[in-house]
Amino acid sequence: MGGECCETVVCEDCYVLVVVDERRRFVFRVRRGGVLGSDKGVLRHDELVGVGYGSWVRLSSGVPALVLKPRLVDLAERAFRRRTQVIYPKDQGLILVMLDVRPGSRVLEIGVGSGFTTAVLAQAVGPEGRVYGYDVRGEMLAVAERNLRDAGLLDRVVLRLADARRGVEESMLDAALVDIPDPWLVLEALENALRPGAPAAFFLPTISQVEKLLRALEERGRWADTRVVEVLLREYEARPGALRPRTTMIAHTGYLVFSRLTSPRPS
Amino acid sequence: MGGECCETVVCEDCYVLVVVDERRRFVFRVRRGGVLGSDKGVLRHDELVGVGYGSWVRLSSGVPALVLKPRLVDLAERAFRRRTQVIYPKDQGLILVMLDVRPGSRVLEIGVGSGFTTAVLAQAVGPEGRVYGYDVRGEMLAVAERNLRDAGLLDRVVLRLADARRGVEESMLDAALVDIPDPWLVLEALENALRPGAPAAFFLPTISQVEKLLRALEERGRWADTRVVEVLLREYEARPGALRPRTTMIAHTGYLVFSRLTSPRPS
Amino acid sequence: MGGECCETVVCEDCYVLVVVDERRRFVFRVRRGGVLGSDKGVLRHDELVGVGYGSWVRLSSGVPALVLKPRLVDLAERAFRRRTQVIYPKDQGLILVMLDVRPGSRVLEIGVGSGFTTAVLAQAVGPEGRVYGYDVRGEMLAVAERNLRDAGLLDRVVLRLADARRGVEESMLDAALVDIPDPWLVLEALENALRPGAPAAFFLPTISQVEKLLRALEERGRWADTRVVEVLLREYEARPGALRPRTTMIAHTGYLVFSRLTSPRPS
Amino acid sequence: MGGECCETVVCEDCYVLVVVDERRRFVFRVRRGGVLGSDKGVLRHDELVGVGYGSWVRLSSGVPALVLKPRLVDLAERAFRRRTQVIYPKDQGLILVMLDVRPGSRVLEIGVGSGFTTAVLAQAVGPEGRVYGYDVRGEMLAVAERNLRDAGLLDRVVLRLADARRGVEESMLDAALVDIPDPWLVLEALENALRPGAPAAFFLPTISQVEKLLRALEERGRWADTRVVEVLLREYEARPGALRPRTTMIAHTGYLVFSRLTSPRPS
Repeated sequence: MGGECCETVVCEDCYVLVVVDERRRFVFRVRRGGVLGSDKGVLRHDELVGVGYGSWVRLSSGVPALVLKPRLVDLAERAFRRRTQVIYPKDQGLILVMLDVRPGSRVLEIGVGSGFTTAVLAQAVGPEGRVYGYDVRGEMLAVAERNLRDAGLLDRVVLRLADARRGVEESMLDAALVDIPDPWLVLEALENALRPGAPAAFFLPTISQVEKLLRALEERGRWADTRVVEVLLREYEARPGALRPRTTMIAHTGYLVFSRLTSPRPS
Repeated sequence: MGGECCETVVCEDCYVLVVVDERRRFVFRVRRGGVLGSDKGVLRHDELVGVGYGSWVRLSSGVPALVLKPRLVDLAERAFRRRTQVIYPKDQGLILVMLDVRPGSRVLEIGVGSGFTTAVLAQAVGPEGRVYGYDVRGEMLAVAERNLRDAGLLDRVVLRLADARRGVEESMLDAALVDIPDPWLVLEALENALRPGAPAAFFLPTISQVEKLLRALEERGRWADTRVVEVLLREYEARPGALRPRTTMIAHTGYLVFSRLTSPRPS
Repeated sequence: MGGECCETVVCEDCYVLVVVDERRRFVFRVRRGGVLGSDKGVLRHDELVGVGYGSWVRLSSGVPALVLKPRLVDLAERAFRRRTQVIYPKDQGLILVMLDVRPGSRVLEIGVGSGFTTAVLAQAVGPEGRVYGYDVRGEMLAVAERNLRDAGLLDRVVLRLADARRGVEESMLDAALVDIPDPWLVLEALENALRPGAPAAFFLPTISQVEKLLRALEERGRWADTRVVEVLLREYEARPGALRPRTTMIAHTGYLVFSRLTSPRPS
Repeated sequence: MGGECCETVVCEDCYVLVVVDERRRFVFRVRRGGVLGSDKGVLRHDELVGVGYGSWVRLSSGVPALVLKPRLVDLAERAFRRRTQVIYPKDQGLILVMLDVRPGSRVLEIGVGSGFTTAVLAQAVGPEGRVYGYDVRGEMLAVAERNLRDAGLLDRVVLRLADARRGVEESMLDAALVDIPDPWLVLEALENALRPGAPAAFFLPTISQVEKLLRALEERGRWADTRVVEVLLREYEARPGALRPRTTMIAHTGYLVFSRLTSPRPS
């Protein structure tokens, strides 16, 4: 199977996404002798080896299950160890677009958490880009490191156990994402780390934090083109003939503030 | 200024984004002798040459204006010629994440329109990736081609003036985005063009189209893990002390349907 | 205490709302010897007799609890027996406004359910108005009757165990609310029951039902000024300094269709 | 026609709502010799006299137009003179439910504005109820008075040109609605005017105001059961076969804060 390994055909040590139904979606690494257990039946990992992605297998109960190659979003949602509240795909996507992240970009991330968004950024910057991730919590960085290694993205990420409020080592970076409770304390660090005109994104759960950040951006006189948005994701029951929005939704994760670094504003 | 040209310093022929205020954001290419006119004053292009991105200049009236390097999103929103309704950044971002687009990806796009989303995909796949864009409207493809050339992304895009309902030339592609009114007519083409398990995204303005697509996906027996979502972007007035959502919002652009190609579903 | 009984002062047999905190809100009728039990402590009903509404008492544990006169919405949310999905206050309010319900109105309700909305209508029409409530489910009508009696509103409501699809007894009614899964089957009944020009409201969980209803309204040629809306209620954590929308919300209850009966539309 | 005048049949001096299409909805009082002009044709008022509500007439151009008896919401939206931003029906409805307004209620309104919400409250309290409306702006009260007279609701409303921040004359009122920019300045007045346990609603455009109000409610120690909500109304294009949310929507009018007056909170 050679080069197809983990690309089109499941091998030992590949990650797979097994979908039984909407609620039963499992991401795991295939291990000789391993077993996936669920209330709908079990699946021996050995049966997966050699199966093509996109194929159906059957659980012990006869229930069909779909075998897929996990996207990064599947891996992050189902296999990543989590210790913190995470930024969701709905917000990550807009961050990628608004920060203009592309292959080769050098991106700063302050507040790595469990590394979900770090991974999204790392995938987007490609092998020639870099993500510089700061966090003051050693145990969080250890979690993020494991997650990034599992996703095969660790080589593009530089994790730093350091307090970005005291400054960061890099300079002339292309963009920054800040996901800490007190982002107003890292504005000076950002001003030193980013190239002039570079965009920054801030993720904030409460409106009181947004207010405080807006004041700080204004006071420093180095930020412009600021926007505050909130992304709402409405999910529908995908049943033809009975289409309707889901009864409950994640109504709020956080606000996104986008701004751009400038030279000092003339009076 | 050498390699910095258009990167950190404005030169002739560079694109710039000039921000006077929230509503006056101009993207244009700097031309010797050119003039930017606005109701707040004029700006001679020659004054921009040699200015660093992130700096402030003054209009003839003395009003300050910020000079920025346009992100792709700025270029597309302000400089692209438009002939069609476009997919917005809020949706483009989620599409990138859900289609797992990354450097090197080979992506199919059916319904190129004015090329805004094509450009976003092309930026994400990088120089080693490819976007194969189909459209039946010759004049639209011409618009898209100009836009992609302006964005410096044309070399990664293969534009095809052809009816994808009759099939597409490529195979084993990594992902597909479909933005045409009758996506149920290209499902067979997608099944031939995508590698097994690949994700597809469909953008649809009306709920009636969503219903029809869901039925078609079900009938073909080759699609699974289907989700229907709608992304709502709420913008806020970014005034500290008077934070409030904007009075009006783009309340609807379209629904997004995500699904994955499988081998035929067992009965 | 005389006339103040159950108005400003709690007496035996009055309904009270006891609020311990946001999640612990209890509505019950005060009974001699009764006890309210909660995980925060117990409260003997006897202690409530003679207490003024708006006052604080203490649970056995010393935790303070607020004694309030229940509004109809409190009564319905906390004391009504429920057997069905109900229309929420966010929708009830708009229905009152759009149906122009006022003291003295005579309103038709098809699909009484547990009587929550019946009660809201009955309160609004006052002692001189009437609500005519139809349901085909005897056990539901029994529940609704108990709930309406508890709310002191039964004297304004005429409950009919009958299939409105076969017609209703009343005529020249001022407005109608329809909350059944197949409202297109009662349009003829509505046309006979309402006075010309009267408004009707339809509550429907799925968009497929909305579509079917719109077609039926159009085909009958007797309905105009039709509007389709959805009311979303966003709740905030009411904590000064940490204001944010609740993480989850009731994202969908149903769509509301409003229309007005006309004489046959000219071609 | 006698008692039917303005009830089922259009007479001189009756208000009518004439609907040509979704965007052409006219509310006016029928005057002998009057003419309704529109870009779709004209309609002489005399042709309306004797026409039954719910009937169709034709404009001079032959275009059909529907003649309806205006609901209060039609009257307010189309015939009321407006000088201020108003509270919308989506919010008015929830206010009615949450303030438990009913026939006979005595309601305080601080910030009358053009009287739209005053009218909704006045209709709900019926001839035996009362609305006490305070405003410091004499010209606004004059507008409100004209609007309420036109709606036939002035006899239930007591308008007071006075600054409620210095206290109000009434006491033991059943509920209060506050629609002024600095509601924290009338809390003491509310505490004197409302009966214990009574509900109050506050309408506020910005989140900063909400924050300030929440702090004031907390500091006074007389308010409990506080909730902050926002009502979003999503309108749909009511076209069967092409159902979709309207492209733009009123995304924000204001936040609603509900609270209840209590005796001083025990420590």
